[in-house]
Amino acid sequence: MKNNVILLLHCPDQPGILAEVTNFITVNKGNIVYLDQHVDHVENIFFMRIEWELKDFTIPRDKIGEYFETLYARKYQMEFHLYFSDIPPRMAIFVSRMSHCLYDLLARYTAGEWNVTIPLIVSNHSDLANVAERFGIPYHVFPITKDSKKEQEEKEMKLLKDNNIDFIVLARYMQVISENMIQHYPNNIINIHHSFLPAFVGAKPYHAAFARGVKIVGATGHYVTTELDAGPIIEQDVVRVTHKDTVEDLINKGKDLEKIVLSRAVQKHIEHKVLTYKNKTVIFS
Amino acid sequence: MKNNVILLLHCPDQPGILAEVTNFITVNKGNIVYLDQHVDHVENIFFMRIEWELKDFTIPRDKIGEYFETLYARKYQMEFHLYFSDIPPRMAIFVSRMSHCLYDLLARYTAGEWNVTIPLIVSNHSDLANVAERFGIPYHVFPITKDSKKEQEEKEMKLLKDNNIDFIVLARYMQVISENMIQHYPNNIINIHHSFLPAFVGAKPYHAAFARGVKIVGATGHYVTTELDAGPIIEQDVVRVTHKDTVEDLINKGKDLEKIVLSRAVQKHIEHKVLTYKNKTVIFS
Amino acid sequence: MKNNVILLLHCPDQPGILAEVTNFITVNKGNIVYLDQHVDHVENIFFMRIEWELKDFTIPRDKIGEYFETLYARKYQMEFHLYFSDIPPRMAIFVSRMSHCLYDLLARYTAGEWNVTIPLIVSNHSDLANVAERFGIPYHVFPITKDSKKEQEEKEMKLLKDNNIDFIVLARYMQVISENMIQHYPNNIINIHHSFLPAFVGAKPYHAAFARGVKIVGATGHYVTTELDAGPIIEQDVVRVTHKDTVEDLINKGKDLEKIVLSRAVQKHIEHKVLTYKNKTVIFS
Amino acid sequence: MKNNVILLLHCPDQPGILAEVTNFITVNKGNIVYLDQHVDHVENIFFMRIEWELKDFTIPRDKIGEYFETLYARKYQMEFHLYFSDIPPRMAIFVSRMSHCLYDLLARYTAGEWNVTIPLIVSNHSDLANVAERFGIPYHVFPITKDSKKEQEEKEMKLLKDNNIDFIVLARYMQVISENMIQHYPNNIINIHHSFLPAFVGAKPYHAAFARGVKIVGATGHYVTTELDAGPIIEQDVVRVTHKDTVEDLINKGKDLEKIVLSRAVQKHIEHKVLTYKNKTVIFS
Repeated sequence: MKNNVILLLHCPDQPGILAEVTNFITVNKGNIVYLDQHVDHVENIFFMRIEWELKDFTIPRDKIGEYFETLYARKYQMEFHLYFSDIPPRMAIFVSRMSHCLYDLLARYTAGEWNVTIPLIVSNHSDLANVAERFGIPYHVFPITKDSKKEQEEKEMKLLKDNNIDFIVLARYMQVISENMIQHYPNNIINIHHSFLPAFVGAKPYHAAFARGVKIVGATGHYVTTELDAGPIIEQDVVRVTHKDTVEDLINKGKDLEKIVLSRAVQKHIEHKVLTYKNKTVIFS
Repeated sequence: MKNNVILLLHCPDQPGILAEVTNFITVNKGNIVYLDQHVDHVENIFFMRIEWELKDFTIPRDKIGEYFETLYARKYQMEFHLYFSDIPPRMAIFVSRMSHCLYDLLARYTAGEWNVTIPLIVSNHSDLANVAERFGIPYHVFPITKDSKKEQEEKEMKLLKDNNIDFIVLARYMQVISENMIQHYPNNIINIHHSFLPAFVGAKPYHAAFARGVKIVGATGHYVTTELDAGPIIEQDVVRVTHKDTVEDLINKGKDLEKIVLSRAVQKHIEHKVLTYKNKTVIFS
Repeated sequence: MKNNVILLLHCPDQPGILAEVTNFITVNKGNIVYLDQHVDHVENIFFMRIEWELKDFTIPRDKIGEYFETLYARKYQMEFHLYFSDIPPRMAIFVSRMSHCLYDLLARYTAGEWNVTIPLIVSNHSDLANVAERFGIPYHVFPITKDSKKEQEEKEMKLLKDNNIDFIVLARYMQVISENMIQHYPNNIINIHHSFLPAFVGAKPYHAAFARGVKIVGATGHYVTTELDAGPIIEQDVVRVTHKDTVEDLINKGKDLEKIVLSRAVQKHIEHKVLTYKNKTVIFS
Repeated sequence: MKNNVILLLHCPDQPGILAEVTNFITVNKGNIVYLDQHVDHVENIFFMRIEWELKDFTIPRDKIGEYFETLYARKYQMEFHLYFSDIPPRMAIFVSRMSHCLYDLLARYTAGEWNVTIPLIVSNHSDLANVAERFGIPYHVFPITKDSKKEQEEKEMKLLKDNNIDFIVLARYMQVISENMIQHYPNNIINIHHSFLPAFVGAKPYHAAFARGVKIVGATGHYVTTELDAGPIIEQDVVRVTHKDTVEDLINKGKDLEKIVLSRAVQKHIEHKVLTYKNKTVIFS
């Protein structure tokens, strides 16, 4: 794999930004291999993801951020992030008792589909320890009760910090993440909710979908915010159901959706193709 | 077209119903051309749609209901409806100012796709009178204000009654139907709601979908009940959207969905393939 | 509607093109309202669609093409097209006997959804004359036999020329367009084929789909080239079918697909969002 | 799990079959828990799947087949199969080098989603031995060259026979199965083809799809017959692609489709919900 620089930015829209940024890279001998941009004409915000080869780029790797800040970010009031493709993000998986999402994530990881490192799995139950063991990934159990929640989450956060975790994937983790942990990982906790949000927020969405008699069920991959199931949506998909489907059928059909939707959301995040703005996402191609 | 009898029924499930009913038709020389059934094992209800040729059937057409009532319906506590395919149902269309659903319904009607009669169109605005005129269908305008609503609805109901209307299609009709009219047409008023219900109930669902940042929008064809947008769902479908779509884009993409979903729901109703039970539908194949 | 300039171009990819073009527009006081670009890294081709407001642009409208040619197109070996949003393209519809696509196109046109002019409809049959009449559009019948085809097509082409037709939409037109006419409208004849191409090329695709027992059928909007059903694909969509669907059911389900897919393809063409290269399309967002 | 009898049958359609069969089960005190039927009015064939509880059924388990044969099958020229839900079918998986389908099958199996036994995995390569080992399933390698094919297949068939294998799942197995093996497992070898059949039969379908410029790619689960990629289709699904997708993107998007479509097809087979007739399938609900 080539070593590339990935620049994600957004700022108030004004003429010339795109021309200046691409020119900056080009004149410094960066070969641009990816460019996608978006203008939100309602909010008047310019969003951009640009990627170029580090090879031959005349600005030293550890100076790029400083130069970009000085030359452009201040001028245009940009928020920006720089990533290097040779530094894979570090991902923790949180699970409870259902294995389908976990298997799907680990199968992709093991097959080398993603540029990511998964140093550990966290669970509030021991049930899936054997799955983790099969894939050779450390599995940490933190049983959670109402009383122990705060304390256990602090231990979890220490573990995450010690392992330099960049982002967390809740793979059908059946605990609400507390505000404190969410604030440590803003837009870096990805959850899969087993409904087509905003329909059926909260617990037991398949039961609610069955009771309502919907003809389609869905799943939603989103960032976790302090309001339950209300964070920025990264990906959604649906599957058709009929009056013949029982609640159990919905749950089973939903499992396939959940794992695919979660994996698509995780992949976009790993590829640094998600920009979040005002509780909505820009998903680059 | 052959002249067929269509029998729709539901009753508490018990052994032998299917065998008895099919046997009843067969021994009386009815050639069964369609049979679909469903058992709801949660509610323990048996649902069935069966259709046979009237030709050669030994029971006279106007006696079938009586015989069936006497022989089976009482015994099994059935609710049933009989329809004859040579009596097309009579449908009224209600519209306001948007034409896309109206055109879609009338194009199908004019092309002879449906076994239905459309004697009239009702509107609270005169805007679409020219569309009705193009298709040669009487267009009745009943302007509605808060004060005139009750009175105008009564005139509408008289018109419907005078024209022997069986069911009403709200083709983006932007007035809430009052309880009185709903009770005159139970499970016979079909509405298209421009969202994936139960998400975005009420007014301006595309604006709400845009604000929430969903990645998919939908449309829902349902029977109107006294609770707004909460009646039995007949059909739903969805279309993918992205961060690039403005509210106007959602509205435009949604129009295609709305007309297709409404027409599918109307078609199922015309074909007597919808059975409603406890605010949910059984949709026969 | 604002008056905008739309520039579509493609050329061999090299550094700096995007920066130069956006800079050219910006320094000449054009407010860019749309930009989408794509690099085909296999063929090494750069594709771009850019749109800006004509208001305040310092280069006179009738000189933009010349300046762009001199300053950039020669340097970068570009092929480019300029369009102005106040000059709607002129579209002819060709039909035979089926009305569903025609109604869908005309309903959108009449509702003002598209920035297009439809001066005429051509048919090899008189069946749909009444539809055209309803919408007040001249309907020209050119009956075609094996012997008369060449002669009739020449008359059609004269009619198209006299009416300054820019592009043709084959709305289930059941005649093969001859090579001569195709060459007069390269990438300007849009056909709807009633299958998921390249499956089921040619006549009676629904019969073929039924015989093969597929579980999904599709429709394809594509540009017509001299090889039958093999031109650049603009849009495709599908719908699920089952063993219960007869050939007639496939045809009916397919009709909805055909009209939606054709209309989506036509809309992309009207918006100048399709670039064709080597028998494939780039579809701008 | 309750112990049920599952009866699959088809025969020339005539009046009374459904009534007789359901009556036979009911009078012998079988509680019917599932019934789905279909009449192919073109071929005039009646298809049926019926399932009832063995508990309380008055005919001994090992006599049901004989009684049914004598009383009904001969009379109506039925072909029928009886299955008992306490005897899970025995499934062999064939793989080559790609792991995504294998992981998906084994994750479901391990999680107890399916009523099936998987005694062994066969491969022509050793690459995925470690996956099999993780799940504790014997992995047998039979390297295949042009010269050794016949001999190796015979060894494979002996292994299958020794393990009482009922059906084979080709989970991206990159060898053509020879006629001899196919004839030993008629309608019992399920393949996943990585295209929307009948488009792109044969090798490298994603490359062909890319070259054709399609806007949607698909996957097809089907029974293997002696004609390549032409057997009865069990399940298909599709995913949207754009001009931005490279061949590698198509391959990656396709992987998700392949595993889901294959698993759906396998599940229908395990549940005895597939009836094959004249190279087409009836898929019961």
